Amino acid sequence: MSSAATAPEPEPRPVRFGIMGCASIARKVSRAMLLAAPAAAVAAVGSRSEAKARLFAADNGLPAATRLHGSYEALLDDPDVDAVYLPLPTSLHVRWAVAAAGRGKHVLLEKPTALCAADLDVILAACEENGVQFMDSTMWMHHPRTAKMRQLLDDRSTIGDVRVINSVFSFRADEDFLQNDIRVKPDLDALGALGDAGWYCIRAILWAVDYSLPRNVVALRDPVKNQAGVLIACGATLYWADGKIATFHCSFLTNLTMDITVVGTNGTLHVTDFVIPYEEKSGPFSVASESNFAELHTGWVPQPSRHVVATELPQEALMVQEFCRLVQGIRDGGAGVERKWPSITRKTQVVMDAVKTSIDNGFQSVDVAS
Amino acid sequence: MSSAATAPEPEPRPVRFGIMGCASIARKVSRAMLLAAPAAAVAAVGSRSEAKARLFAADNGLPAATRLHGSYEALLDDPDVDAVYLPLPTSLHVRWAVAAAGRGKHVLLEKPTALCAADLDVILAACEENGVQFMDSTMWMHHPRTAKMRQLLDDRSTIGDVRVINSVFSFRADEDFLQNDIRVKPDLDALGALGDAGWYCIRAILWAVDYSLPRNVVALRDPVKNQAGVLIACGATLYWADGKIATFHCSFLTNLTMDITVVGTNGTLHVTDFVIPYEEKSGPFSVASESNFAELHTGWVPQPSRHVVATELPQEALMVQEFCRLVQGIRDGGAGVERKWPSITRKTQVVMDAVKTSIDNGFQSVDVAS
Repeated sequence: MSSAATAPEPEPRPVRFGIMGCASIARKVSRAMLLAAPAAAVAAVGSRSEAKARLFAADNGLPAATRLHGSYEALLDDPDVDAVYLPLPTSLHVRWAVAAAGRGKHVLLEKPTALCAADLDVILAACEENGVQFMDSTMWMHHPRTAKMRQLLDDRSTIGDVRVINSVFSFRADEDFLQNDIRVKPDLDALGALGDAGWYCIRAILWAVDYSLPRNVVALRDPVKNQAGVLIACGATLYWADGKIATFHCSFLTNLTMDITVVGTNGTLHVTDFVIPYEEKSGPFSVASESNFAELHTGWVPQPSRHVVATELPQEALMVQEFCRLVQGIRDGGAGVERKWPSITRKTQVVMDAVKTSIDNGFQSVDVAS
Repeated sequence: MSSAATAPEPEPRPVRFGIMGCASIARKVSRAMLLAAPAAAVAAVGSRSEAKARLFAADNGLPAATRLHGSYEALLDDPDVDAVYLPLPTSLHVRWAVAAAGRGKHVLLEKPTALCAADLDVILAACEENGVQFMDSTMWMHHPRTAKMRQLLDDRSTIGDVRVINSVFSFRADEDFLQNDIRVKPDLDALGALGDAGWYCIRAILWAVDYSLPRNVVALRDPVKNQAGVLIACGATLYWADGKIATFHCSFLTNLTMDITVVGTNGTLHVTDFVIPYEEKSGPFSVASESNFAELHTGWVPQPSRHVVATELPQEALMVQEFCRLVQGIRDGGAGVERKWPSITRKTQVVMDAVKTSIDNGFQSVDVAS
């Protein structure tokens, strides 16, 4: 070992976020940005009025120096914003994500990222052309539990070939939500429960198969729609060319449920709080592997094992940190954009398109575009 | 209170079972009969040879007085047999269950009870005509855990309206099973994984909705068949007129998995060892009810609760006891047969028929016969 002291690596400058819109979910993400310091800093808030931006900053304990902009344009004109977090209604994503990319702002985009894959492609092309990082705001992807479960799925002896996946994400919305939330409005979030809760199920299924796209999709019958025709509950079965099958169900009408079940030739994975863990600082799951019947089929040998993965920071802060790491690499280190994230986003959106098409065409099988 | 001592109720005489066939599952059930004493007694074993019957009796610690019969006919001619347990291959059920009923023997029948509902109806008609009790051998129905979960489903505040049910039952069969087991042979158990593992899934789903029949059934695509055309892995989605949806998957090809997930408007039930509990003397499950997001959606309030239901006797012994209670009522007390059990069996078989038809007709929707 050399005895010469090495100068410490200079701490990279924080990524300066502009929060574009004061949606309820932005409260959680602005808190995550504060927790993700020093990688992240909230530099500015833009809303349709400066008063709304001021209220948001005060309510969420943002630093006094946070700049308050009375329009989205003004936020994008702010030269001291590196990246935007964009929680606007889905129907506004193309316009504002493209505008942000055009000003050189990196884009952290709420899900569903677009109303269809063609729209998403416009956003992704703008990000690519402008060399800015794109990431969707799917928080559970960044929990260390997800990485741990990924390891087990990759370790062929534990789960083996994945054959069957089930995912459910539902929450019981109250009457106010069902009447007034943007997620039930055809002009704002036309994909309804499919775009909201279903997004997570589709992502979970793709995650479980390491992002290989299904060959075809068949929607479940009898989806529930509201009077405006927006999906309130629905589902689908996904089929892969190699025989894998996945089914999901998403709903605004039933008790909070967040399941992924992955059944492989060698093992079975269960997680029942995959989108938002029961507790902020840990995530449980269970794994059964090489499970056999006990003598005379009176029990299981071995029994499944339960795991709990701790995390110091909540998953949304880890998401912000990962996004910042990529932005810092581009901004300060000359790195290129990380294409894994837009690729995963696009696959999720492509499957969602197929599900929507199958619902719209009477539950026929729909080939998944690649 | 009267001070006069009441003579104790005389203990009912044991139900004297004849075990008809020495299938592997009969080992577990003969043990259950011994555990279910004094309600049950193993009186006789019938097999295609007396030597096989003798071997079975010795291997399973049956009493020395157990009569050994070298044919099924001889067993049925035994006047000191009250009831038969019939674990023969499904293709033999009509012949032997009808013969047993015709001799006045009560019938405890292994699942799948028949190759189709029409065959089952022949069996049930014979039992009805002869005034003998019919019950299928679906053991988990008799675990006190099942009763406890039933209570929670019936208590409208806990689960509310059931909307979505998922069930998976798979086990990974070895090469010998996949080549030689009766459950992969078209002339013995032609329903394959659907009749074996799928039976439990369909029963679980019907149980969860208190035995209301679905309106229609759509099989999952891409079922796996062996070279003889017997189903090795398959599934289906079931639809009720009121919008309930259930999906199941059954397989001989993936790790041991025994899931029921019931999602209602108010709550969610999870059980992951429903067919055979992890341990013989207890059964776990978990319930989430009125689950809400914590502030900023950083957790769940309340979290699900985990329950463990203990049982002194294993579920198969409780099944034998329940069957004996009914037989004793008929034999000794002049009671009528309990029609709940054949009714539940028939509904299970009717849904299974619809799934098979949907698989055979290219995954079209099939109306469920009532």
